[in-house]
Amino acid sequence: MKLVTYESVSGRRIGCIKEDHIIDLNGAYQALLEKENHPRAEEMANAYVPKDMRQFLQGGEESMAHAKKGMDYIWSHRDEEIKEKYIFPITATKLQAPIQNPEKIICVGLNYRDHIEEMGRELPTHPVIFAKYANTIIGPEDEIPLPHVTKQLDYEAELAFVIGRVAKNVREEDALDYVAGYTIANDVSARDLQMRTIEFLQGKTLDGSLPMGPWLVTKEEIEDPHSLDIKLSVNGEKRQHSNTKQLVFNVNHLVSFLSEIMTLVPGDIICTGTPGGVGAAREPQQFLQGGDVVRIEIEKIGTLENQVKEIDRW
Amino acid sequence: MKLVTYESVSGRRIGCIKEDHIIDLNGAYQALLEKENHPRAEEMANAYVPKDMRQFLQGGEESMAHAKKGMDYIWSHRDEEIKEKYIFPITATKLQAPIQNPEKIICVGLNYRDHIEEMGRELPTHPVIFAKYANTIIGPEDEIPLPHVTKQLDYEAELAFVIGRVAKNVREEDALDYVAGYTIANDVSARDLQMRTIEFLQGKTLDGSLPMGPWLVTKEEIEDPHSLDIKLSVNGEKRQHSNTKQLVFNVNHLVSFLSEIMTLVPGDIICTGTPGGVGAAREPQQFLQGGDVVRIEIEKIGTLENQVKEIDRW
Repeated sequence: MKLVTYESVSGRRIGCIKEDHIIDLNGAYQALLEKENHPRAEEMANAYVPKDMRQFLQGGEESMAHAKKGMDYIWSHRDEEIKEKYIFPITATKLQAPIQNPEKIICVGLNYRDHIEEMGRELPTHPVIFAKYANTIIGPEDEIPLPHVTKQLDYEAELAFVIGRVAKNVREEDALDYVAGYTIANDVSARDLQMRTIEFLQGKTLDGSLPMGPWLVTKEEIEDPHSLDIKLSVNGEKRQHSNTKQLVFNVNHLVSFLSEIMTLVPGDIICTGTPGGVGAAREPQQFLQGGDVVRIEIEKIGTLENQVKEIDRW
Repeated sequence: MKLVTYESVSGRRIGCIKEDHIIDLNGAYQALLEKENHPRAEEMANAYVPKDMRQFLQGGEESMAHAKKGMDYIWSHRDEEIKEKYIFPITATKLQAPIQNPEKIICVGLNYRDHIEEMGRELPTHPVIFAKYANTIIGPEDEIPLPHVTKQLDYEAELAFVIGRVAKNVREEDALDYVAGYTIANDVSARDLQMRTIEFLQGKTLDGSLPMGPWLVTKEEIEDPHSLDIKLSVNGEKRQHSNTKQLVFNVNHLVSFLSEIMTLVPGDIICTGTPGGVGAAREPQQFLQGGDVVRIEIEKIGTLENQVKEIDRW
């Protein structure tokens, strides 16, 4: 399934994509329960298929199964009334980032062989990890703010995966059981802030510096996350192009490595690192300007496109 | 006020300290509203004085004022029935960390002149910041886990402040308006993990590596946060002793600096850095062992004491 978070008249909800439409998952499951004459259909739908993605993921496979049943029911019974209530053209809603309020956003640095070479560094012996906070999250239809605090805003195309089960000391061979799915992330970085101290964080956590989406592709749709083409363009000009087979530390290794240090929980976002071709490594360096359109494509996931917008004083 | 989060039979709640007792703030305000015959007393109490500290802080001065009114009412009418329902000896409950689920935990590194000297570094031109995730938070009555993934667990006594109002581009002279209050934090660090890559994060975010508390002292009780004695002992042996006047970047500067990079929101925790005397800087180096008792005292706030507990496989 392609899971989305979207804005509706009744607030933020989750849905799934079917033929250029969004099906409201909470509504669909409630409709199914009502059809089956469950006396507490609304409460059960809220418990099993909550409207918030992080809460939904906490329900694990059970919630996923209920959501699928609801979706199948709605799709196979789509008369005019049902369409009006539960099925919307994608273009009629605003997509948001699939996850809004994760406990953790963990970024992996220096994780593509080609990017490590362009930065002139050695292959790391352990994953290099750093954080972004949830203030960075924006969706596929939002603009990337370019505030005056930086003169060196840069892009980083990344495959991100999202945790679906509480993970602690997980072995590499079991790791994918703990992944809910995959999405596209742009780890937007203010290089001047990133490099002015010994820690990256301040250059990594500007408001709106993590465009993400357009959806969370559940893992059964991506048999091998380590063979996906990934590319990024700015205003149509190709800047990054690689394949996730270039990852030094792959998804299995990262789940295992991270879960030995900290408990991972549903909704945690792990950005796996960026390939070569970032603006800071070009000669001459080339940073993002107001109006630039940054487009990322990852095979089997889709496209994430955001425009940069210069802002005065936020 | 000294605000606490504590465990009650009805779950996690917030309270305030009065003469070695905890007053249930949500319950107190509800009792006051009931006394005034408000028809929706419970709903109003939940809206103005929520049971969760982060939500309570979101209510700002209005919520704080309602909480105080409730507290005063309950304290001045404390008959047996009221005591049973709303007032508990501190020893009869378990205190937890005052904030449980912040959007951000921002740590400042290298921020005491004496600590910078012992680490052999230069005075930084900008604050060095790094993150911990919410999985690190434990309370004043919890044990600090020592997992087998590290051989070099270390302590760091820190003054922490908590954001009380949404803060964006705040000037230094206005900064304290955005602070809700102060608490004690131990930025427990796994030095081997911290130093094995170019980023600190992996050594800073072990489960349970941020003991915090015992309470949040609201800012009106601390006139000057930059003149507080701070000390730490291990098993009674003095290890750190300094004063917050040694801070290179003070609270005002940090609020202003951080709010230029990212929007700060109520409940965000900022750990202001640690003085000299950490275990890694001793000769010979001396790291925490199972059974060690780490005690931090900060003037006008109180004492935070936690025992280290070695754990097998978490």
